[in-house]
Amino acid sequence: MAPGADHEGYGFDGPIDASTTVVVVGAGPSGLMLACNLARFGIEVILLDDRPDKTSTGKADGMQPKTIETFKQMRLADPLLRNAARVYDISFWQSTADKPLQRTGRQTHYPQHLVGASDPYILLAHQGMLEEVLIDDMESRGVFVTRNHKFVSCSRVEGSGQLHVTVEDLSTNKIKTIRTDYLVGCDGARSKVRTFIPNGELEGEITNASWGVLDGVIETNFPDLWSKVAVRSYTAGSILWIPRERGMTRLYVELSSADGERVDRAKATQEYVIARAREAMAPYTLEWKTVEWFGNYVVGQRVAKHFMDPDARIFIAGDACWPIPISGAGHCHSALAAQGANTSMHDSFNLAWKLNLVHRGLASPSLLSTYEEERRKIATDLISFDVEHCAAFEKGEDALTKNFDDNIRFIAGIGAEYTSGLLSARQTTSTPLQPGALQLPAKVTRYYDANPVDIQLDIPLLGQFKLYLFVPDIKASLNFLSTLCTGFSGSSPLGKLSYKANQSYVKQSRGTTPGDDFFQFQRYTAVSNALTFSMVTLSTRSEFELADLPPALQASRWTLYLDDVETPGCTEKWVGGLGKEEVGIAIVRPDGYIGSIDKWDLTAVEQAGKSIEEYFLFMLQ
Amino acid sequence: MAPGADHEGYGFDGPIDASTTVVVVGAGPSGLMLACNLARFGIEVILLDDRPDKTSTGKADGMQPKTIETFKQMRLADPLLRNAARVYDISFWQSTADKPLQRTGRQTHYPQHLVGASDPYILLAHQGMLEEVLIDDMESRGVFVTRNHKFVSCSRVEGSGQLHVTVEDLSTNKIKTIRTDYLVGCDGARSKVRTFIPNGELEGEITNASWGVLDGVIETNFPDLWSKVAVRSYTAGSILWIPRERGMTRLYVELSSADGERVDRAKATQEYVIARAREAMAPYTLEWKTVEWFGNYVVGQRVAKHFMDPDARIFIAGDACWPIPISGAGHCHSALAAQGANTSMHDSFNLAWKLNLVHRGLASPSLLSTYEEERRKIATDLISFDVEHCAAFEKGEDALTKNFDDNIRFIAGIGAEYTSGLLSARQTTSTPLQPGALQLPAKVTRYYDANPVDIQLDIPLLGQFKLYLFVPDIKASLNFLSTLCTGFSGSSPLGKLSYKANQSYVKQSRGTTPGDDFFQFQRYTAVSNALTFSMVTLSTRSEFELADLPPALQASRWTLYLDDVETPGCTEKWVGGLGKEEVGIAIVRPDGYIGSIDKWDLTAVEQAGKSIEEYFLFMLQ
Repeated sequence: MAPGADHEGYGFDGPIDASTTVVVVGAGPSGLMLACNLARFGIEVILLDDRPDKTSTGKADGMQPKTIETFKQMRLADPLLRNAARVYDISFWQSTADKPLQRTGRQTHYPQHLVGASDPYILLAHQGMLEEVLIDDMESRGVFVTRNHKFVSCSRVEGSGQLHVTVEDLSTNKIKTIRTDYLVGCDGARSKVRTFIPNGELEGEITNASWGVLDGVIETNFPDLWSKVAVRSYTAGSILWIPRERGMTRLYVELSSADGERVDRAKATQEYVIARAREAMAPYTLEWKTVEWFGNYVVGQRVAKHFMDPDARIFIAGDACWPIPISGAGHCHSALAAQGANTSMHDSFNLAWKLNLVHRGLASPSLLSTYEEERRKIATDLISFDVEHCAAFEKGEDALTKNFDDNIRFIAGIGAEYTSGLLSARQTTSTPLQPGALQLPAKVTRYYDANPVDIQLDIPLLGQFKLYLFVPDIKASLNFLSTLCTGFSGSSPLGKLSYKANQSYVKQSRGTTPGDDFFQFQRYTAVSNALTFSMVTLSTRSEFELADLPPALQASRWTLYLDDVETPGCTEKWVGGLGKEEVGIAIVRPDGYIGSIDKWDLTAVEQAGKSIEEYFLFMLQ
Repeated sequence: MAPGADHEGYGFDGPIDASTTVVVVGAGPSGLMLACNLARFGIEVILLDDRPDKTSTGKADGMQPKTIETFKQMRLADPLLRNAARVYDISFWQSTADKPLQRTGRQTHYPQHLVGASDPYILLAHQGMLEEVLIDDMESRGVFVTRNHKFVSCSRVEGSGQLHVTVEDLSTNKIKTIRTDYLVGCDGARSKVRTFIPNGELEGEITNASWGVLDGVIETNFPDLWSKVAVRSYTAGSILWIPRERGMTRLYVELSSADGERVDRAKATQEYVIARAREAMAPYTLEWKTVEWFGNYVVGQRVAKHFMDPDARIFIAGDACWPIPISGAGHCHSALAAQGANTSMHDSFNLAWKLNLVHRGLASPSLLSTYEEERRKIATDLISFDVEHCAAFEKGEDALTKNFDDNIRFIAGIGAEYTSGLLSARQTTSTPLQPGALQLPAKVTRYYDANPVDIQLDIPLLGQFKLYLFVPDIKASLNFLSTLCTGFSGSSPLGKLSYKANQSYVKQSRGTTPGDDFFQFQRYTAVSNALTFSMVTLSTRSEFELADLPPALQASRWTLYLDDVETPGCTEKWVGGLGKEEVGIAIVRPDGYIGSIDKWDLTAVEQAGKSIEEYFLFMLQ
């Protein structure tokens, strides 16, 4: 299938060198996040990369709070939290015609009252460290990166939904063919896969703004070396300082502004960038003890019109969805708010569980179209924010502060919301936490072993949904719970779904590694592989015994929580105040977004059950 | 040197196969903790073990809060925190003549108001996991365990303080000789090294109490499977349940009580222990899906009279200092409160930094005698506690609860205090935190990069002391700070000590691993390798700039903290309320114990300086 609809469907009759379920092109953060999750879900994947080796320096530089949470949920955050630098604050410096360079303000980067993240900082480590964590996990589950392999083209297999993917082995220059169900291009801003998506072209602007980027160890008498610093100098443009791991600092140095004349690329050498930085930072002195990486880029603000083909077989994710950089630095948008790798990985994170469910026949293929709906909205929001952010950066502290405050939840990754579509239910009541938003962090006590846990991290990501029952008074609610649970068992639609899911994971098990043994995943799928049952209660531990509960909740003993740690507690934060005659119910998607959340009267158990069934319609056909 | 003083000092004239600074015998938790710390400090060490391989199952089972803190300070806690089980609560069950088995109470294991630990739980993982963490770190610094080597004897090298250590290579049966400055026996309850310490014999009791121990995955309808559970059955003795990693449970099953008749060892089989457990737990059913380890032991409560020889060349640590077990289980005392490995590792942790300073000539050899003073007191306290604890366990819940509450800080490892000796200074004022106690956990903000940190964990353990200045008002205290810091520079006694220490670490550098690069240790030794300077202030970040501070504090920019996170804050917790005209000063030992802590008037800078110098007298000779 060459670009354009007129070429669709031509035949292929060469030899098949391999066949798989998903071919992922590109082993950057986005491709690795996808392949790693697919490997965990037990989906066959071939991950191709045209480079001979891993990323070792530079490139993407910061993990936002939501990304840190995602890595924690995947149980992969430890080495990054241990070794990376953390930025908690931002300081503003400015020089004007009549005033030398001085600090004009300092503020917390992610204020709790605006963001409410459990990790309210940017975590800085070079992209290679982040990639290594994903590679190690993937390899421990038996999936390896196929390096030195370049994606060439793809075509549709006649009479089936499958694709033939043509690949060049760069070490032998041989062409190979892979038969696959899905193809995902995580192949960056110049994505080749994108050209096979009808109407996949980019729309938007390339600006004249250009920046130099420099990673290294700096010796300076500038006092704010270890804050994120936004500098606006009167004579030499803007500079952004970002602290990094191993004593390094990243400097973004403005070479030309969006409304100015674009700087000649030949001029934008490392020496030029250093000289410009020194000029902007005078009278402070800057000496580089080492320079680990240098790059430069022009800011583009473009988004692909489509992230997938109409048949939901070819997808793009990450940089492939956004503008083409002019330079070699690979930056597609301004990078000043450190969004790139974060949004890229969350594209993949969104796509992975959907491919898993659809491939297993546990969800209708229509689920896949929510990928483009949801992620293209985020990409568009990101570009709009980026345009405003760059403009604010030019205008100075007040504008930048306002732009930050207005967008801080979005920057943190927490404010990326999916408010419509088949995965976001309409509410019958009003709750503080809304469908389409991320789970709110909350501390609760696990009933079974009295461990205090973070509710948003506790249940492992196994490709399953989560059903949280908020029960203020267990004794009063036993009938409700019992009726509700019975409605999900045996021959009920949800009972059948669970049976089907359980069969599917027996037939094609999740990808495991010996370390998984410590996490005892069977604790979370005892009732269903489609849905983990959970209960959050305001009753105390002494007010009930396991044996009092309906069988489905007894079997879910590891996901019963006491809401006794914080004020306001989890119940209050998620569903709001509940009377003793009420129960709250939240359905959380496999990627941690709220699907449905509502309050029910104890008398309305039938409607509550029906509403849950309705949510899962796309899985019940 | 054979056992007993009469054999001391005989000559040796065979070939020397190796020479080193410290020979450690035994690669269990205690020996590994010692060798790992010595490797970090840059001290040459040979670690011998007579086993062919690592510990893979069973044995010591729980890390107490203080041990978790120690591993965090060593930056080695991550894999344990990730994979081990955590016990937060304890429940009590009892059956009597007329009442069947029932829960009689449940309580938090380490209540905050009694313990105040930052990790208020027991962390359960088999000893091999803990050992592996230490081995990996040690190996990354170039020190490996010499396996299959058995300690045979040692003798003094005439005319020098050194020792000849004779070792048998068990794979070849060849005898080898190692010349060493120090020998440390971490060779367990049946320690051979102990026999070379004059008057090193054990004193105390072996009781009739015997227990069976069983690790495995249990299927049961007993509801408290995931709490620590103390069961007292009417007909079948006592049982202690402890949850473990990978879904396992450890059961301690009482076979005979201290005042009963000791059970015949031949009878104490796995089947017998299982049958007895089932009887005690009836009517609940117990099925073992797997048994990973089985052992049994008799409770002894004995302590060696000496932990070192009078010349401070031969030491014992850990189980070697305590009673001989009768069985193969290796338990030396009751183990019911999970103290063994914890106390063992803290013996070594205490000894390691002292050996480092004395070997480098940075402290007088008299420092080594504080090892026995301090650790024998803890061992004696441990045995006394153990006697009471066993008695309380027999008496039932009320007695056990009281015994727990009385000793909970000691059990946690937090209450192990060193109140006398050359390392604990007399106070001139009264402060909440006292010399001899451990640093109190407190959250503060690092001034330089606005990161919130735990003060007790933030400064890496590099064998150095820490000097904390508590300054309520920086502007008002600048003269004091400046005068005090000047008194430590150049040709002052402490200035000379720092110079000597800096020279020592240039000549013989610390043992490093590539991962250390992320921790930038030079940040903590910029002023002195003997002492990290630190300041905790109630002034806000905007009230002072780095450039305002005296040079020693400017150079200590990574250890300036704002006391703005908690109420009560660090200042309040450590030195109590301070007036604006006062400054608090604490000296913290390399192992985290408070050496000296006092309050000073701003006018008393000379006395303050003198008191610091006095503390360090043992290093200034």
